[in-house]
Amino acid sequence: MPQQNQQQTETTQQVSLSDKNKLGVIAKAPTKPQRVTAFDRWLLRKMSALIGHPPFVASLWDGVEYMHQTELLPVGHLKFKDRGALYWLLMDPELHFGDLYSTGRLEVEGDLLQFLEIAYDFMGRNLPNNLFNKIVKAWMNRPRVNSLSGSKNNIHHHYDIGNKFYELWLDKEAIQYTCAYFPDPDMSIEDAQIAKLHHVCRKLQLKPGDTVVEAGCGWGGLARFMAKHYGVNVKAYNISHEQIVFARSKALQEGLADKVEYIEDDYRNIKGEFDVFVSVGMLEHVGNNRYKDLGKVVDRCLKPDGRGLVHSIGRNFSMPMNAWIEKRIFPGAYPPSIKEMMDIFEPFDFAIQDVENLRLHYSKTLEHWWQRYEENLDAIREDFDEAFVRAWRLYLVGSIAAFNMSELQLFQIVFTRARRNDLPWSRAHLYTQG
Amino acid sequence: MPQQNQQQTETTQQVSLSDKNKLGVIAKAPTKPQRVTAFDRWLLRKMSALIGHPPFVASLWDGVEYMHQTELLPVGHLKFKDRGALYWLLMDPELHFGDLYSTGRLEVEGDLLQFLEIAYDFMGRNLPNNLFNKIVKAWMNRPRVNSLSGSKNNIHHHYDIGNKFYELWLDKEAIQYTCAYFPDPDMSIEDAQIAKLHHVCRKLQLKPGDTVVEAGCGWGGLARFMAKHYGVNVKAYNISHEQIVFARSKALQEGLADKVEYIEDDYRNIKGEFDVFVSVGMLEHVGNNRYKDLGKVVDRCLKPDGRGLVHSIGRNFSMPMNAWIEKRIFPGAYPPSIKEMMDIFEPFDFAIQDVENLRLHYSKTLEHWWQRYEENLDAIREDFDEAFVRAWRLYLVGSIAAFNMSELQLFQIVFTRARRNDLPWSRAHLYTQG
Repeated sequence: MPQQNQQQTETTQQVSLSDKNKLGVIAKAPTKPQRVTAFDRWLLRKMSALIGHPPFVASLWDGVEYMHQTELLPVGHLKFKDRGALYWLLMDPELHFGDLYSTGRLEVEGDLLQFLEIAYDFMGRNLPNNLFNKIVKAWMNRPRVNSLSGSKNNIHHHYDIGNKFYELWLDKEAIQYTCAYFPDPDMSIEDAQIAKLHHVCRKLQLKPGDTVVEAGCGWGGLARFMAKHYGVNVKAYNISHEQIVFARSKALQEGLADKVEYIEDDYRNIKGEFDVFVSVGMLEHVGNNRYKDLGKVVDRCLKPDGRGLVHSIGRNFSMPMNAWIEKRIFPGAYPPSIKEMMDIFEPFDFAIQDVENLRLHYSKTLEHWWQRYEENLDAIREDFDEAFVRAWRLYLVGSIAAFNMSELQLFQIVFTRARRNDLPWSRAHLYTQG
Repeated sequence: MPQQNQQQTETTQQVSLSDKNKLGVIAKAPTKPQRVTAFDRWLLRKMSALIGHPPFVASLWDGVEYMHQTELLPVGHLKFKDRGALYWLLMDPELHFGDLYSTGRLEVEGDLLQFLEIAYDFMGRNLPNNLFNKIVKAWMNRPRVNSLSGSKNNIHHHYDIGNKFYELWLDKEAIQYTCAYFPDPDMSIEDAQIAKLHHVCRKLQLKPGDTVVEAGCGWGGLARFMAKHYGVNVKAYNISHEQIVFARSKALQEGLADKVEYIEDDYRNIKGEFDVFVSVGMLEHVGNNRYKDLGKVVDRCLKPDGRGLVHSIGRNFSMPMNAWIEKRIFPGAYPPSIKEMMDIFEPFDFAIQDVENLRLHYSKTLEHWWQRYEENLDAIREDFDEAFVRAWRLYLVGSIAAFNMSELQLFQIVFTRARRNDLPWSRAHLYTQG
């Protein structure tokens, strides 16, 4: 269960994302009322100018509203609650916006999603990319070391918050914390996650008796689904203890324990030889200089005519992870570009057969999650403080904005051993089955 | 029309691939009979051992047959007609096999395709990759400069041999000198080329009135097809004079001259703004350090919500072009890996939407071409000498072997501007239409 720290004082709140990652100094709002100075106002105008005057109303802690003259209608109201909030945000908007929002020192009134989309848009177009910014960004975005023990800590940070938390807003059936597949955009999240699982299995051309290894199995939904519906035998690896315990008990309940083995271990320790390698939503945690190591594992464990699929958040080009998400939500996470992903495959002569970008499917998935999240706030508040609640809201909504604005992509990559010639003559089989 | 050189002497033949690229010294077979020495036999055994004793019968110019003891049945008989042939082949099998075969100093009896597949297999597994080999390969494979004038020469070398030559063995309808699409492997080459054109158009989601720019249009088949069946307006670029003349006259004949404009110019000189960029079978000629330049052209000519498709031979990983094909058949050609191709897209924030590997479709396409080539030998021999005929046979059959053995891939890459959100919710539309 999540460790929580409820030692709140009058002036600080503590995020309970984990027992290690405190907000620290940024959580400390001032205790005494502050006067707004001419310099504060000058800074606010300067900030607006810096990102090209987005159509936001802004106010400082005296409540006086400011908006640059523009023909655009305002899409949100950004409220700075104290001088520190203004200064922290100016120092590094990407990292500190999240913390200031979480702790309530910064408030957004209006449509949060639209506000974030416009912020992405204006910042992408207008934020100067000078040397100072680059140095600061490089420093802030230094990757966490995903060594075997580092990975365990990073994954614990995110996935061991508690199964109960995720069950409140993920789909009920397959409990998928990865992008769903909406061939019809009006599908329910339950149907879309089942459609995703079928889509993955069809891409892998699973047939009864195949042996499958899964790297990073979450709560084990895909592994059980493959065993149940496609008659394969699965070994599924995960380093999150809570998830493995959950997955095993589900497999027992569903009578699949002889077809699916859940192994609490790192993907680098995968042993054995398999017909199929699959990894859905793990590559984001592998880290941007370890793709060749992952390829080595795949090469070691795949039979001579083997095939595989990697499903991962990605980028149109290489860039650092959003600093706040990397720090507060997903330590060690990094979404690679296709060029970077190729380091998994090219050194080992794997043949790329199919790449599909499901970017807008992730927007839609996240919309469903966000809706359920808001519907279950009371239950979430039983276990988590308000800073946590606000941080996760920002993370969900910010992710929708990032996919909508194409800051993030979702790639499914199908690959085979180079000389596998038993390939379908078209991809029609992905679309013609029940 | 192709320049030909029929100044044959008793002892040399000259390939008429172009007026520039003579076989030179390698074409000069000895005029006097030679005695086979013990050293010659030792070299032959050494060569067999070097590539792991493939199941070939080999004989020197005395006709005595040699085959290493193995359980494999022989799949071909390799005949060296003189000592020079043996020495040249040992010096550089990849480059000289083609020339020796073309000039008849080296003969293969039996199934040429199977022979070449096994040769790929054994050489891939067994040829030592030592420093000397690497230096020699790097030297031999130094890329031709694809400057504007260099490209023109390289393309002239291959495509201006004469339309008549290609018409003898390509499909009759669309005259496509690129990979066809066989959703049903029993289709005719005519149907499969039409299926390819539809597949490309559907991937591009063409709609009437769209403006399309095509880089490298061959004989203009795709441009006319898009205009005729999808109601779009096309500007199609090509630097091959013969192809442009042919394409224009076809467009006139078919009443499409107001919808399709053929421009005899380099893709780097494309002007204007378009909804769609398409390039089928040109990237192979762009050269491996010019992908970013190509991306710059696409970025310049694509509208803010534009989309595009690049269809190209590729590799599972970066490696030099086969030396003989680069020298004799396709000067300046280079099939890139996906990682290399990403230099077109990633610097310009293009979003990769779909990658499909059609490798075995190219094997099948080439099988059809080879069959027609052999059926039309008499007509081909009217214009070309025997060395040319043998060189092109080797090129066609060697290409089948290369695709079958996964030395080459065929990638279709669909991309869009990053923020284009008008995307289909699945790829089913590629498979459900007529």
